[in-house]
Amino acid sequence: MKVTKKEMLYEGKAKKVWSMVEDDDCYIVEFKDSLTAFNGLKKAEELGKGALNNKISTQIFKMLETKGIKTHLVDTISDNEQVVKKCKIIPLEVVVRNIATGSLTKRLGIKDGTVLPFTLVEFCYKVDELNDPILNDDHCLILNAVENIEELNYIRETAKKINNIMHNFFKEKGLKLVDFKIEFGKDKDGNIILADEISPDSCRFWDAKTNEKLDKDRFRQGLGGLKVAYEEVLNRILS
Amino acid sequence: MKVTKKEMLYEGKAKKVWSMVEDDDCYIVEFKDSLTAFNGLKKAEELGKGALNNKISTQIFKMLETKGIKTHLVDTISDNEQVVKKCKIIPLEVVVRNIATGSLTKRLGIKDGTVLPFTLVEFCYKVDELNDPILNDDHCLILNAVENIEELNYIRETAKKINNIMHNFFKEKGLKLVDFKIEFGKDKDGNIILADEISPDSCRFWDAKTNEKLDKDRFRQGLGGLKVAYEEVLNRILS
Repeated sequence: MKVTKKEMLYEGKAKKVWSMVEDDDCYIVEFKDSLTAFNGLKKAEELGKGALNNKISTQIFKMLETKGIKTHLVDTISDNEQVVKKCKIIPLEVVVRNIATGSLTKRLGIKDGTVLPFTLVEFCYKVDELNDPILNDDHCLILNAVENIEELNYIRETAKKINNIMHNFFKEKGLKLVDFKIEFGKDKDGNIILADEISPDSCRFWDAKTNEKLDKDRFRQGLGGLKVAYEEVLNRILS
Repeated sequence: MKVTKKEMLYEGKAKKVWSMVEDDDCYIVEFKDSLTAFNGLKKAEELGKGALNNKISTQIFKMLETKGIKTHLVDTISDNEQVVKKCKIIPLEVVVRNIATGSLTKRLGIKDGTVLPFTLVEFCYKVDELNDPILNDDHCLILNAVENIEELNYIRETAKKINNIMHNFFKEKGLKLVDFKIEFGKDKDGNIILADEISPDSCRFWDAKTNEKLDKDRFRQGLGGLKVAYEEVLNRILS
C-alpha cells in the first residue's frame, strides 16, 4: 500500500494523525514512543514502544474484525504507522472493567483485585482540561457526546462484546484482561466503529499464573521492564 | 403527640437521630443549627437554622404526600424536631438538576446558569471519606447501593416526579428550583420512601425575577444573609 503523508492534523500524547495524499477518506496514524500517565503529569520516552503498540493493536483489531466488530483499521504500513478510516471521534473514553484496580478502587473504596460481579462499563468525558470526568448516561446526552440514548446503548453493548471476545482470546494466551479503555468514532456513513488503539497502553494485562503486570502500570507504578512486558504481550498474541 | 427520646443513634453534620420510647418503628430527628459545606471543610453555626429547615422540610414533605409521594415524615413535634418512620437509608445522594450550577459546571465545563435540556438525575455514593463520588447505574449495583436495577429506576423516576411537583409548586411562589439533593430509605415492609429533608440546605432556590440565591450557596459563597433567605423561602411556601 503506497501512502504519502500530507499534513499533520493532530498530535496527541501517544499518536500523531496525518492526512494522506492517496485517499481523502483515510488518515495515517503514527504511534509515538512517548509514555504519559496521570493525565500527562508523568512522562517518558521508550524507544520502540510505538512500534510494539502498533503491532499489538493491529493484531487485536484484525482479530476483532474476524468476530464481527467493525474497526477503523485499514492496514499497517510500517513499524509504527497504520492507515485508518477517517472518522469523527466520539468524545467518550469507554472503560470496561473485569477486575477492580487503579482509579476505581480509590474512587469507590473497592479492594484492589476484586473480581467484579459483572462487566462494568464506564464512560468518561474525553477532555484533558477537565481530567476526563466520569459520566452517567444523562451527562453523555446533555454534553451531546452522542446523539441519542440508542447510540450510547450501542456503544455500551459493543464494548461488552469486545470484552467478551478479548477476555476469551487472552485467556488462551495465559493473560487476564483486567480492564481496558477504548474509543469509538463515526465514519462518513454514520456507522459507529472502533477507533484509537488497543494495546498495553490502554489495557491492563496480568499474567494468569503470577498476576505480574504486563501493561502501562509498569510505568505508572515505576516497576521498570515496560518494553519487555509489551514484547511479552505481543509474543503471546502471536503464539 | 407525646414522644420521649431514648437513645441518640446517630449524629450527622446537620441532624441528630434518636430512638423513641413510645414507638419502636419511629425515630426522632433533631435539626441542628450547624452549617457545613465542601464536605465539612467549611463550618458555622446559625441560630434558628435548624428550626427553619424543620418547618420548611415539613411543609414540602406534606405537600409531596398530597401528590402521592410516600415519605418518612410522621409529624413535627417541636420547633426543631420531627418524628419519622424508621427506614434503612439507601446510600445514594440523589441529585436532581434543572439548571447547571455548582459542582456540575466545574466538573463538566458547562456554563453556570445553563438551563439543562432535560432534568438531570445524578447518583452519588454517600460516603464522606470518598467525597461522595458520582456513580453510574453499574456502580450502584456493584456497590450494592440498591438490590437491583428496578429499584434504581424506581428511585430515578420518583426523583423526577418529585422534581416536577416541586418545580411547579415553587414556580407559583416566585422561586426557581435550580437543583436539589434527596435521599431515600427502605421501610420495614421494603417500600422505598423519601427520607432525610428537603430544605434550603439541600436545594438551590433562585428568586424568579432577580436570580438572588435563597439557599445554602449564601453560606458556601460567603454572601451573608443566610437566615433572612431561609425565612423568605418559608414565608413563600406558607403564602
